[in-house]
Amino acid sequence: MAEKVRLASVGLGRWARVQARGAQRGDVIELASCFSRDEAKRSAFQQEFNIPKAASTWEELLADKDIEGIILTTPNDTHRTLIEQALQAGKPVYTDKPIAATMQDAASILKTAQSTLVPFAVGHSSRRLSGHRQQKKWIEDGTLGPVSLAQANFSNERGLELTPDTWRWYADKSPGGAYIQLGVHHADTLQYLMGPVKSVTAHARKLYTKSEVPDAIMSILEFESGALGYLGTGWASPGVYTLSLQGTKANLFYDLDFTHWDDAHEVDNFSSLLSQEYGESSRSTVKLPLTDMFKEQLEEFALATRGQAKIEVGAVEAVRALAVIDAALLSNKRNGAAVEIAEVLDTVGVVL
Amino acid sequence: MAEKVRLASVGLGRWARVQARGAQRGDVIELASCFSRDEAKRSAFQQEFNIPKAASTWEELLADKDIEGIILTTPNDTHRTLIEQALQAGKPVYTDKPIAATMQDAASILKTAQSTLVPFAVGHSSRRLSGHRQQKKWIEDGTLGPVSLAQANFSNERGLELTPDTWRWYADKSPGGAYIQLGVHHADTLQYLMGPVKSVTAHARKLYTKSEVPDAIMSILEFESGALGYLGTGWASPGVYTLSLQGTKANLFYDLDFTHWDDAHEVDNFSSLLSQEYGESSRSTVKLPLTDMFKEQLEEFALATRGQAKIEVGAVEAVRALAVIDAALLSNKRNGAAVEIAEVLDTVGVVL
Repeated sequence: MAEKVRLASVGLGRWARVQARGAQRGDVIELASCFSRDEAKRSAFQQEFNIPKAASTWEELLADKDIEGIILTTPNDTHRTLIEQALQAGKPVYTDKPIAATMQDAASILKTAQSTLVPFAVGHSSRRLSGHRQQKKWIEDGTLGPVSLAQANFSNERGLELTPDTWRWYADKSPGGAYIQLGVHHADTLQYLMGPVKSVTAHARKLYTKSEVPDAIMSILEFESGALGYLGTGWASPGVYTLSLQGTKANLFYDLDFTHWDDAHEVDNFSSLLSQEYGESSRSTVKLPLTDMFKEQLEEFALATRGQAKIEVGAVEAVRALAVIDAALLSNKRNGAAVEIAEVLDTVGVVL
Repeated sequence: MAEKVRLASVGLGRWARVQARGAQRGDVIELASCFSRDEAKRSAFQQEFNIPKAASTWEELLADKDIEGIILTTPNDTHRTLIEQALQAGKPVYTDKPIAATMQDAASILKTAQSTLVPFAVGHSSRRLSGHRQQKKWIEDGTLGPVSLAQANFSNERGLELTPDTWRWYADKSPGGAYIQLGVHHADTLQYLMGPVKSVTAHARKLYTKSEVPDAIMSILEFESGALGYLGTGWASPGVYTLSLQGTKANLFYDLDFTHWDDAHEVDNFSSLLSQEYGESSRSTVKLPLTDMFKEQLEEFALATRGQAKIEVGAVEAVRALAVIDAALLSNKRNGAAVEIAEVLDTVGVVL
């Protein structure tokens, strides 16, 4: 076994813990340092995950030759500055999704990643779920036939529980609310399965959350293939995570119990993929081999810092996912008129 | 037991048979006559359902004092003429959904029904399914909490099997394809559950059918309550029939096996309603008492011809359902921009 890849956790909240547990489930990564501006958080995190050291400043971490890459889980609106400083210092970065809170920030990060050529990965973990890997296989081997409708929903109760002391409360830090926090997962996974989105039509409403952001968002995606997609997200109900595909030869219904989301190594056991073939009334259960989306993506990133793996979801894929969110919010402002992805990319000078 | 209500079947195709079987499952209706312009079809139908007589012309049927009402299952674009002639002749009419193929026809039928005061019912049967009755109950008794998202899909493989000798092939006889034939059911049921729709945003595509009509249609409905609804229909995949509701206190997922649709007295056995409450991971099965949507609606109509029952779905509800279809097709022409229901009603001079 080669020496473990030494990564540092940055932004030490709840999600950093989920990711740290994912990293420590494997034997590829050593959490070798950590950083948060809050010293108490640093020590607590260091102790909890048995990390040998903590950086006392961000600059100290970037200068640490011992650290091979960063796992970033800070608020979305801080991504751009931190990611760009790290990449420019030659430190590979894995960041939680979305790539940024705005298309301007995302475009800038894309440019920096492309000019520095330093490894950069974005945590669109959900496409790695066993159910979605199977859906991809059924599309590629022709078992589904051409797909005309793809339907996805990702919702939970977060909007009912938000308080003003969390960044997700605010429209400037988390524009789109449930749609950018939850929907962006499906925005990536749907494009992974169906190819690029061409245009987006959407309505967003703030119904039951007290925060500044919408808690009910529905969108229709037109794919470049001509197929239609639906992406719905809510923040005012119990958790829902579904993605169904309707092909000429078969349908596939994927349903995951969101309450197990944080335990990526077990979540496949709490999800189901049912198939229904043309002319058949009954549905069959598709076997889902156990995966571990958080561990897998972090290990892929870790190995990529040494040139030993290819990053599946980098800046380009993450910009495509965020572009769907941005187009949807623009469509909502235009009373549902379809917004071309090309328009939102043009606005920030991105050509993919 | 009172004397049975004597009804006549008109338009003697596949759907007339499904309805006749529904009528004959109960003891309220006697199929006392039937009519089709095709004499061979008339005799075959008469024999199959043991009907004492058949009318040799439409005028003969309308003049038959023995007949208390008509069960109409002719093509959608023939509804207006036949319904209006019958109502003007004082004959109550039950018609299959949609009320008509166009809003112009629907508006005219509404006016005739309102001016003649002759009983008129439209076969939006699906709201009578046990699962939807339970969903309504959960909304009304507050168990769901306020609903922010309602999501429905009704799809089947019909578009792949259409041939030019059937009226559903043609855009002028069945505008909207899957959306008017299947989607109109949910357009009624969603409004039954969530109240009136205010505006509709939609995209329609003709992808894999060889016919003139779209086989992939997705729409976002804004309800007057502010909640959002999704209504998707396809005609190029195996059957799907789902309707889910997301409330602040619970979700309800309804799923029906479409292959049993024609057997209304058994279809509740092939459907499921799952509930998931706030804070709960697992789902519970909601018991669905057996109903019989076709028998129930025909018996309600039959009794209404004698003033002994109130018609649940008449011209007003059916116009509201068709207005959603019309608004969606208009929105599609406008590249997804939201179309107000008020606009499509205004265009044909209807105030509801």
